[in-house]
Amino acid sequence: MKILVINGVNMNMLGVREPEKYGRMTLAELEDKIRGYAQTLNVEVDTYQSNIEGEIVEKIQQSRGVYDGIVLNAAAYTHTSVAIRDAISAAELPVVEIHMTNIHSREDFRKKSLIAPVCIGQISGFGENSYILGLKGLVDCLSTEKNQ
Amino acid sequence: MKILVINGVNMNMLGVREPEKYGRMTLAELEDKIRGYAQTLNVEVDTYQSNIEGEIVEKIQQSRGVYDGIVLNAAAYTHTSVAIRDAISAAELPVVEIHMTNIHSREDFRKKSLIAPVCIGQISGFGENSYILGLKGLVDCLSTEKNQ
Amino acid sequence: MKILVINGVNMNMLGVREPEKYGRMTLAELEDKIRGYAQTLNVEVDTYQSNIEGEIVEKIQQSRGVYDGIVLNAAAYTHTSVAIRDAISAAELPVVEIHMTNIHSREDFRKKSLIAPVCIGQISGFGENSYILGLKGLVDCLSTEKNQ
Amino acid sequence: MKILVINGVNMNMLGVREPEKYGRMTLAELEDKIRGYAQTLNVEVDTYQSNIEGEIVEKIQQSRGVYDGIVLNAAAYTHTSVAIRDAISAAELPVVEIHMTNIHSREDFRKKSLIAPVCIGQISGFGENSYILGLKGLVDCLSTEKNQ
Amino acid sequence: MKILVINGVNMNMLGVREPEKYGRMTLAELEDKIRGYAQTLNVEVDTYQSNIEGEIVEKIQQSRGVYDGIVLNAAAYTHTSVAIRDAISAAELPVVEIHMTNIHSREDFRKKSLIAPVCIGQISGFGENSYILGLKGLVDCLSTEKNQ
Amino acid sequence: MKILVINGVNMNMLGVREPEKYGRMTLAELEDKIRGYAQTLNVEVDTYQSNIEGEIVEKIQQSRGVYDGIVLNAAAYTHTSVAIRDAISAAELPVVEIHMTNIHSREDFRKKSLIAPVCIGQISGFGENSYILGLKGLVDCLSTEKNQ
Amino acid sequence: MKILVINGVNMNMLGVREPEKYGRMTLAELEDKIRGYAQTLNVEVDTYQSNIEGEIVEKIQQSRGVYDGIVLNAAAYTHTSVAIRDAISAAELPVVEIHMTNIHSREDFRKKSLIAPVCIGQISGFGENSYILGLKGLVDCLSTEKNQ
Amino acid sequence: MKILVINGVNMNMLGVREPEKYGRMTLAELEDKIRGYAQTLNVEVDTYQSNIEGEIVEKIQQSRGVYDGIVLNAAAYTHTSVAIRDAISAAELPVVEIHMTNIHSREDFRKKSLIAPVCIGQISGFGENSYILGLKGLVDCLSTEKNQ
Amino acid sequence: MKILVINGVNMNMLGVREPEKYGRMTLAELEDKIRGYAQTLNVEVDTYQSNIEGEIVEKIQQSRGVYDGIVLNAAAYTHTSVAIRDAISAAELPVVEIHMTNIHSREDFRKKSLIAPVCIGQISGFGENSYILGLKGLVDCLSTEKNQ
Amino acid sequence: MKILVINGVNMNMLGVREPEKYGRMTLAELEDKIRGYAQTLNVEVDTYQSNIEGEIVEKIQQSRGVYDGIVLNAAAYTHTSVAIRDAISAAELPVVEIHMTNIHSREDFRKKSLIAPVCIGQISGFGENSYILGLKGLVDCLSTEKNQ
Amino acid sequence: MKILVINGVNMNMLGVREPEKYGRMTLAELEDKIRGYAQTLNVEVDTYQSNIEGEIVEKIQQSRGVYDGIVLNAAAYTHTSVAIRDAISAAELPVVEIHMTNIHSREDFRKKSLIAPVCIGQISGFGENSYILGLKGLVDCLSTEKNQ
Amino acid sequence: MKILVINGVNMNMLGVREPEKYGRMTLAELEDKIRGYAQTLNVEVDTYQSNIEGEIVEKIQQSRGVYDGIVLNAAAYTHTSVAIRDAISAAELPVVEIHMTNIHSREDFRKKSLIAPVCIGQISGFGENSYILGLKGLVDCLSTEKNQ
Repeated sequence: MKILVINGVNMNMLGVREPEKYGRMTLAELEDKIRGYAQTLNVEVDTYQSNIEGEIVEKIQQSRGVYDGIVLNAAAYTHTSVAIRDAISAAELPVVEIHMTNIHSREDFRKKSLIAPVCIGQISGFGENSYILGLKGLVDCLSTEKNQ
Repeated sequence: MKILVINGVNMNMLGVREPEKYGRMTLAELEDKIRGYAQTLNVEVDTYQSNIEGEIVEKIQQSRGVYDGIVLNAAAYTHTSVAIRDAISAAELPVVEIHMTNIHSREDFRKKSLIAPVCIGQISGFGENSYILGLKGLVDCLSTEKNQ
Repeated sequence: MKILVINGVNMNMLGVREPEKYGRMTLAELEDKIRGYAQTLNVEVDTYQSNIEGEIVEKIQQSRGVYDGIVLNAAAYTHTSVAIRDAISAAELPVVEIHMTNIHSREDFRKKSLIAPVCIGQISGFGENSYILGLKGLVDCLSTEKNQ
Repeated sequence: MKILVINGVNMNMLGVREPEKYGRMTLAELEDKIRGYAQTLNVEVDTYQSNIEGEIVEKIQQSRGVYDGIVLNAAAYTHTSVAIRDAISAAELPVVEIHMTNIHSREDFRKKSLIAPVCIGQISGFGENSYILGLKGLVDCLSTEKNQ
Repeated sequence: MKILVINGVNMNMLGVREPEKYGRMTLAELEDKIRGYAQTLNVEVDTYQSNIEGEIVEKIQQSRGVYDGIVLNAAAYTHTSVAIRDAISAAELPVVEIHMTNIHSREDFRKKSLIAPVCIGQISGFGENSYILGLKGLVDCLSTEKNQ
Repeated sequence: MKILVINGVNMNMLGVREPEKYGRMTLAELEDKIRGYAQTLNVEVDTYQSNIEGEIVEKIQQSRGVYDGIVLNAAAYTHTSVAIRDAISAAELPVVEIHMTNIHSREDFRKKSLIAPVCIGQISGFGENSYILGLKGLVDCLSTEKNQ
Repeated sequence: MKILVINGVNMNMLGVREPEKYGRMTLAELEDKIRGYAQTLNVEVDTYQSNIEGEIVEKIQQSRGVYDGIVLNAAAYTHTSVAIRDAISAAELPVVEIHMTNIHSREDFRKKSLIAPVCIGQISGFGENSYILGLKGLVDCLSTEKNQ
Repeated sequence: MKILVINGVNMNMLGVREPEKYGRMTLAELEDKIRGYAQTLNVEVDTYQSNIEGEIVEKIQQSRGVYDGIVLNAAAYTHTSVAIRDAISAAELPVVEIHMTNIHSREDFRKKSLIAPVCIGQISGFGENSYILGLKGLVDCLSTEKNQ
Repeated sequence: MKILVINGVNMNMLGVREPEKYGRMTLAELEDKIRGYAQTLNVEVDTYQSNIEGEIVEKIQQSRGVYDGIVLNAAAYTHTSVAIRDAISAAELPVVEIHMTNIHSREDFRKKSLIAPVCIGQISGFGENSYILGLKGLVDCLSTEKNQ
Repeated sequence: MKILVINGVNMNMLGVREPEKYGRMTLAELEDKIRGYAQTLNVEVDTYQSNIEGEIVEKIQQSRGVYDGIVLNAAAYTHTSVAIRDAISAAELPVVEIHMTNIHSREDFRKKSLIAPVCIGQISGFGENSYILGLKGLVDCLSTEKNQ
Repeated sequence: MKILVINGVNMNMLGVREPEKYGRMTLAELEDKIRGYAQTLNVEVDTYQSNIEGEIVEKIQQSRGVYDGIVLNAAAYTHTSVAIRDAISAAELPVVEIHMTNIHSREDFRKKSLIAPVCIGQISGFGENSYILGLKGLVDCLSTEKNQ
Repeated sequence: MKILVINGVNMNMLGVREPEKYGRMTLAELEDKIRGYAQTLNVEVDTYQSNIEGEIVEKIQQSRGVYDGIVLNAAAYTHTSVAIRDAISAAELPVVEIHMTNIHSREDFRKKSLIAPVCIGQISGFGENSYILGLKGLVDCLSTEKNQ
């Protein structure tokens, strides 16, 4: 099983960016942690980050037939990008939307996700663990499907 | 570590209620599954279900000082209950809000949670696994706090 | 054929409550009148009233497999209860929503029913006769189905 | 007692128009069925159909002093016609608004009736039986008034 | 003169619940304080608390003919309960709505009271004194009526 | 100078229709009164009434080149007819919108006029005198233009 | 009969202020024109202008018992002043609201009048003639009342 | 192949009506132009115009079984007519909605079409050519269907 | 302890203004009543009334360091004055907002107070007693602070 | 005459992406079909596709002085991009907005185009033919302008 | 060149009013600072402050022909005063709107300025420097105009 | 002191793009003018322009620790980019938002800035001078901070 973890805009600033909100772990460290956890689940994980909406769109398009699913933290683009939503529909892959912060307790415009309606589900508020939970949720979901 | 899993209104109908949405596992079976997973995490889990908003409120109130945290599927009350929101604030316990279905891809009124802003986070869309992920998320969060 | 007539919150005050709106017949007298009319239709009618949202939910749940359909006057809960809506979906029984007053000519918040979209239909404005019409509408609907 | 049954725009297409929603009975057959039921209630029924808003307005105006009440399915005009609303106020006759489909479970713009606030009540969702229930509701209401 | 003081959902947590907002006096101590003040006004006071919306509804219904008026802190139900609003209309008793915190300086959803329009008036923001002021306001109002 | 006075839907019911709102003068009497006043202004007045939106549209179209201006009481169509608005633009004639009642103190949907933005002005609330004021306003406006 | 004509904020700039909208006649000249027309109606007219909301409020208060009615162009305060609305209610005098421009064809915020619901009626769009029409409308209305 | 071109309200004023928006070609000339183009596509075209909503409804109803499709410029009724929308659903014919002007760059109320959701598609902004494009779009669509 | 009681716009009309809403006591009599009650509380009370928003602003500014708190009935300005809100913030004095009528049961625009969020609390609906309750509430609040 | 056809985000997935909505023709095949049709119109066509909003902006900027017009399917960016709207204004070229699906019958957020108000017109719903119609509409429009 | 600097409501409290937001410099000191800076620009500056909306209106009216432009901090009236907006239109002078705080990061009602649409521009968030920047912006703008 | 001036999407078209709105100076000339003014303030200025949202995000990220502050004209992205907003928060640098046109007097969607709430302040409407004022405002602000 092969999973892609996509981090959206400003996530390259992890560890630097508002550490009281996002913690002090860098993106590279986080990606290592995810890969470590993936091993315990016996799945292969690739990671990708971009600040450009269109590049994230293309990565999702190219995942079709290559990955079994995607864990996606679209960050700010969650709330503004119809393009990423349409890319997910086009890729026809199961996607789990995750957020490090609890988006439901922040500004009103962060409560609405344009992407969630075309995902399996949404996980928000667990910091770095949101990725771990998202990965587990996705893998369990894929396993169930396979066993049916 | 002691965790309470609360199931709200109509969740006693699990296995019977719209199985294409909620699956065919009964609530008792689901609670067994949760307890099984809890053992692997080395935590104790109690379960509770009620169809009455005020009883859920009281269970949350009584959890103060008894449990370390709550996994809460308030079901329909998620979208209408200021009372449960206030009970969570009053209990001063970490709460993880979970939903079996992806509430962000259903009717508009299900997209808004009155409860999420006072929770650690929200998980929705993973069927029975939403409980597993919620439990894991909560326990990891409590462990991190203890270790600090 | 067995039908359940459920009366929601404050309907126990019938005859006393704002008689210029709801008339002077008590709930017991109304239930007698409904049962009388039911006999002319050759159907059995049970009645139930509760002021507690969760109890109405449970009564609807328990009707599954026991009754052929429900005539429901959820009263104030009509406008606020996602829980009762979900109970109807869970029970998978035909439900007719009725109101004694014309809810479309009262306060704006009474014009919206959270329940109507999961019912067969809605009848409002005929006083005690709303129950009679609701019963007739439900029975005719069930008869048609049986004959097909 | 003399009752007028008015069918609004597109109701002449009954039996042809979206039969999965409106059934296969034609308007003529439906009007026969209504007249048949009227006989059992000992009331006289006239029927009228027009696709033109202004003609429906005029028919309602002319009913003043001629009929004891109106059963009105304004169809699409229900949601857009202040003119028909004002005609009902001008005619000072009791009117029962009916719909074959459950308008509360369809598009949002069909949930709002401009006419209901000036009617006795509204019945929706019972197919052809909506007329039968509307007629019964109106006649019972007129009988009660006479007996007082 | 006999007055009922009703406390709604989560008010049993008084003294424990967010003391920076609600103070450190328990509900029992508050009720004593109210009774003490009532004596200075020469009125009898009973107190009641419930976390269940339907029980509050029933208490209000049963107050008809037993009490001269009600001081009501419906707490969270203030913002969501049409049922309590209708119970007040049904009881036909003067009711004073009170809140310990200033609901007009909190979340937007707390600014709207479904209950206030059917009450004499609303008092919010004076902590425990809101009850004292509510009692005084109600008693003065009842005295004026009697003297007329 | 030649002026057309158009009365819209339900205005043929004048004298009969809700006399407490619209008075007891019939449309024929009102038209006589208008013509009488027109003589004092030395202008010729024709009158027209229709209940059909499309006929009013056509009358306005045909007024182009025949009349110097129009006094228009579109009644209920004021609030719903883009068609009449477009007819006024097409006719390129000065139009004065009038209403017998004060539409700004009635239901919310009557406060918005789709027609007013393409008229010279709006007069509402003076009963039969609204026509007299509208006629005077239009004639004064036309005279001023001619004199320039 | 004694009428007061009140001009609100910025109306002292008449003749100077945006002449393409408001014309080149000064306020003094306009008031002369109004007084001239008043003589033809056999009524006495006083005029008043202020730029201060509270002074307009006081003038309206003081008109009680002194004038038979008021012609009021509240100008910008039309859209923002609850105070002037309440002064009109307090004065219990018939008031005609007028505007020189057609407020229904300008910015959206000018379409809503806070004052119109407590006036006899509203006239807008006739330039200086709006005052003449307003005066005539008010006087006719007062004459009718006297004759009844 | 037989196509009907329907022109709605005020389209009979073409050539006269606001020529800077709608051009100087009359409706008759436009219909000739459309028929000319139809010949190049080898399809027969009939044309119809009415200012009355209900007549347009009836023409659409009668097209069932007579025409293969409709090119419809409902003009002002586009934004207000649920009746025409329902007629299209009842006729079960492919309809192309067209507008001469770009409705998306005009008043807000013109941006919403009640009809478009039940049409194949919408074309707006090409003046007389909107009809040519609509006809071509419809015929191509019908040809594709036939060839499948 | 020194308290200022401020009455806003139109409150000088007390006793005259809509007595069915505001009673028959004049402002002078009311101020006497307040001073009388103040004596029983052992506090000094000054009173002020103005119809001019800016004067009320200035009075509040000047209260800083002179009074211990303010009882404020801003009347119509409650709903429109950001200026008074800012004056209260600038004065840094405890203010109690009061209303004689129950503003929550009147027009929608009266339900929103721009001032309440910067006050201790709000009291509405007790007629003249609203001032008494407001004074008591303010004095109790100040006493508590002093004793801490 | 030289025309540029721009395809926006996810259009490179054509033939793969949701074929039931967008068909099975690839983008390359579609571009061939467009070029083929262009030859019949005697115009030269270049094509461009990008998934990056800013690149589409730059292509539009660079079209100034190079192309006579643009056929633009901005896809998801239609609903979110003020940037593309401003690029069109900056380029001062006629642009035709097209969509393969009928955007007016899909999710609400797809009904609003930020781009349409600065285009000649909009065509939606004809699948691949939308490009053909858009090209024809643009070329006819440019030819008319040249001939004037 | 002569410039008027107008300070609106509560600005006389500068130095006292919420110093964490508005700083500790008094209005007199600020006006000195502005005059000092004006000298470096070779322009004459007068200053004015009032708490009364109507007085600010009149000062703006009287500036016509006396000053070359206005720097205006309308403070709270920015968000509520159509009167000041209209005064600016009437004065036909260039006005620069300034705010000491960043109004776009405060309460929602402070984000909307009724005045900005009729000003040259808006500057907000620079504390006392907002006046300096506003003065410079206005003078540069006036100089450019003169040199053209 | 080192400042970065960032120009967003379509600003490379300056001098060409709608010159009646944005003037005839090119971006290069404008950047020269800014650098010239910067010298008079004794600060170093770098400039950057991109049409790609993600590149602007990255430039802001990279400014952290390199520049003392940013003058940002995000142009169209001002109204749609949560990503740039988050980049500013992540960079923890003072940013001044500027616009050449007065965005408060243009289309409604331009009045809302997603970026302003995380900036020091906003300047709009002064053409090229907006940059000069923004630079001055930023430098003064930084100087004040340094001196404290």
